[in-house]
Amino acid sequence: MAARRVVIIGGGFGGLACARALAGADVETTLVDKRNHHLFQPLLYQVATAALSPGDIAVPIRRVLARARNVRVVLAEVNGIDFERRRVGLVGGDALPYDQVVVATGSAYNYFGHPEWKARAPAPKTIADAREIRSRLLRAFEAAEREDDPRRREALLTFVVVGGGPTGVEMTGTIAELARYTLKGNFRRIDPASAKILLAEAGPRLLGAFPEGLGQYAADALRKLGAEVRLNCAVQALDDEGVQLGSQRLAGATVIWGAGIRAAEGAAWLGGSSDKSGRIEVAANLAVPGFDGVYALGDVALRVQDGRPLPALAQVAQQQGTHLGRELRSGATPGPFRYRSRGDTAVIGRSAAVYTYGRLQMKGYLAWMLWALVHVYLLIGFEQRTVVMVQWIYSYFTFERGARLID
Amino acid sequence: MAARRVVIIGGGFGGLACARALAGADVETTLVDKRNHHLFQPLLYQVATAALSPGDIAVPIRRVLARARNVRVVLAEVNGIDFERRRVGLVGGDALPYDQVVVATGSAYNYFGHPEWKARAPAPKTIADAREIRSRLLRAFEAAEREDDPRRREALLTFVVVGGGPTGVEMTGTIAELARYTLKGNFRRIDPASAKILLAEAGPRLLGAFPEGLGQYAADALRKLGAEVRLNCAVQALDDEGVQLGSQRLAGATVIWGAGIRAAEGAAWLGGSSDKSGRIEVAANLAVPGFDGVYALGDVALRVQDGRPLPALAQVAQQQGTHLGRELRSGATPGPFRYRSRGDTAVIGRSAAVYTYGRLQMKGYLAWMLWALVHVYLLIGFEQRTVVMVQWIYSYFTFERGARLID
Repeated sequence: MAARRVVIIGGGFGGLACARALAGADVETTLVDKRNHHLFQPLLYQVATAALSPGDIAVPIRRVLARARNVRVVLAEVNGIDFERRRVGLVGGDALPYDQVVVATGSAYNYFGHPEWKARAPAPKTIADAREIRSRLLRAFEAAEREDDPRRREALLTFVVVGGGPTGVEMTGTIAELARYTLKGNFRRIDPASAKILLAEAGPRLLGAFPEGLGQYAADALRKLGAEVRLNCAVQALDDEGVQLGSQRLAGATVIWGAGIRAAEGAAWLGGSSDKSGRIEVAANLAVPGFDGVYALGDVALRVQDGRPLPALAQVAQQQGTHLGRELRSGATPGPFRYRSRGDTAVIGRSAAVYTYGRLQMKGYLAWMLWALVHVYLLIGFEQRTVVMVQWIYSYFTFERGARLID
Repeated sequence: MAARRVVIIGGGFGGLACARALAGADVETTLVDKRNHHLFQPLLYQVATAALSPGDIAVPIRRVLARARNVRVVLAEVNGIDFERRRVGLVGGDALPYDQVVVATGSAYNYFGHPEWKARAPAPKTIADAREIRSRLLRAFEAAEREDDPRRREALLTFVVVGGGPTGVEMTGTIAELARYTLKGNFRRIDPASAKILLAEAGPRLLGAFPEGLGQYAADALRKLGAEVRLNCAVQALDDEGVQLGSQRLAGATVIWGAGIRAAEGAAWLGGSSDKSGRIEVAANLAVPGFDGVYALGDVALRVQDGRPLPALAQVAQQQGTHLGRELRSGATPGPFRYRSRGDTAVIGRSAAVYTYGRLQMKGYLAWMLWALVHVYLLIGFEQRTVVMVQWIYSYFTFERGARLID
């Protein structure tokens, strides 16, 4: 009798953890992803702001799973699932038969009904996005240096980050540091430190998922870096000419998006969802109700625990993947999953971060050290850890950045 | 009276050295380049073969020249020179007035009358080229893993490098190591080590610029790595279906170009040239005869010394740039330049390289250590040196590569 076949769609934190937990089991496992690399997304904003190279935070999925001889990696795009015949369809015509399938397709940014804004305001989700943002940021300073008209120069030196969650706060802080420190003395006609950096948050405070005091701390820390924080300030319009923030129109600004997420394509294969982020509601054991042998986890899944939906975080996806992988090693029905938070963290800039774990709250230098250590530790390869550490230590002392490339 | 104005076109080894040598002089210097970074081209093949990240071998031109307060850097494309009005024209309409202009626009690869081959056989010249080659190499293995037909699988696992100079030898060696070591155990259906890696050289031996014994050593070392070396073997045809090498047709192969160079656009502004590589012949002091206040150096210039043209090497361009920059500090006519070789080196693979300096010839492990030390030393930034060293040491012991990204 042939071994049981498990197909995992997506090589992010959830899918990869699931495949690793299945290593060595008597299960023919296939992980399919449209990219050849697993991306350490929590540090992607550092690629977008020229501090790290893409290679520093990406690792080939094949390499991670090289020793898991029962796991096959397929580089291909999935175009749907045939639930009746139990096959995952691939672009190009092939199909992967399964006994159990794990949908771990992640999320994309949500432009709140304005998909046309995406081209004008990229969000850091893939390496290509991060490179595009990096080029736009650096190019704006270059164009300002060449511009003779002072008003247009000012417009070119205006940067707007949309969304006051961790991504928006991190982007704002690093752009402010780029302008104030890294680019200092590099130009002859402009002073990069005069750049106007705005963080626009539609809600009443920053870091809504954190305790209120930490959100206040983040706003203060950003202001100290010279950034402007606007609360209760939603984007009204966004076009080639500029961005409308509340009643103010900013012409020519570079706009970076970091607000809200929506479940990726995987959700549609499962019949869509009524959740506002489009996530698929799953049972306690991560099974998708109404579909036999189908599981979903990570950002594409909506799991309510203790009355509250689990947040769209790498650690949630990873714990779910490990849990489900272990449970799928045997042929029995998987048992229920329970998320155990290891704390939440966001970084604002040099020596400034916040960390919360249960009732514990930390901010400032210690939280920043903790953030840096945890993130270096979580990087998958030893080489990457070393390289990222070298880059960070070097940047800490010199304010330089290692990847100021315009593509 | 306004200061004298020197415009340098190109931020490669020659142009950058020239600008650095002008730092602090009473000369309004402008360096214009269409890219924001100086590229350490001798290591570009390592980006193309996933060993290094682009950021590891590129440094922002602005950063290098930040302290040279009399040097301005302009990110723009030059579209010509108005010799009468002494202005360098920029795409977009601006112009840079000059008293003296230095053309240091470098070179491109020469497809010997077949520019249409470029899309089929990219050469490692820019970061974009290197990324494209990296993606093609990695994608070929991925496609082979998904291919059911053994003949097409074999075609996908065929790699042809054209040109037996240092670039071709380096590319062939690293592709062979990628297939044999780095990708080992990463696939389930193919054995990457079974890949066919061919180096095709039109002439009778490899490394024509080196002593014959070293060319023979390179061929032997490549064969030991499992590559096939074909001498007196020119590319006859190259199209979407395959490549024609002598009388043999190889279908579906991935082809990388590393043969011959031709002077970049700068040569055309100076009225073209009768040199087969299109280089502009310059006087002993690097002045372009017939053009007042115009100098050319590096790969775009043809300088005959002791009856032989200087080779198109980074160290030639760099020495010329430093010389000319120093001479241009005063208003006097520049004195003659003389090239002093510091030796030539090419690397074949792990622990295998060649080095020649006058009558001294080295090969093998010692030459390789020397090659590695010299190249790390020549990298411009301290941070880059450290990161590249970490990557190399790690790769040496693990055979892994840090940047296996398909874009």
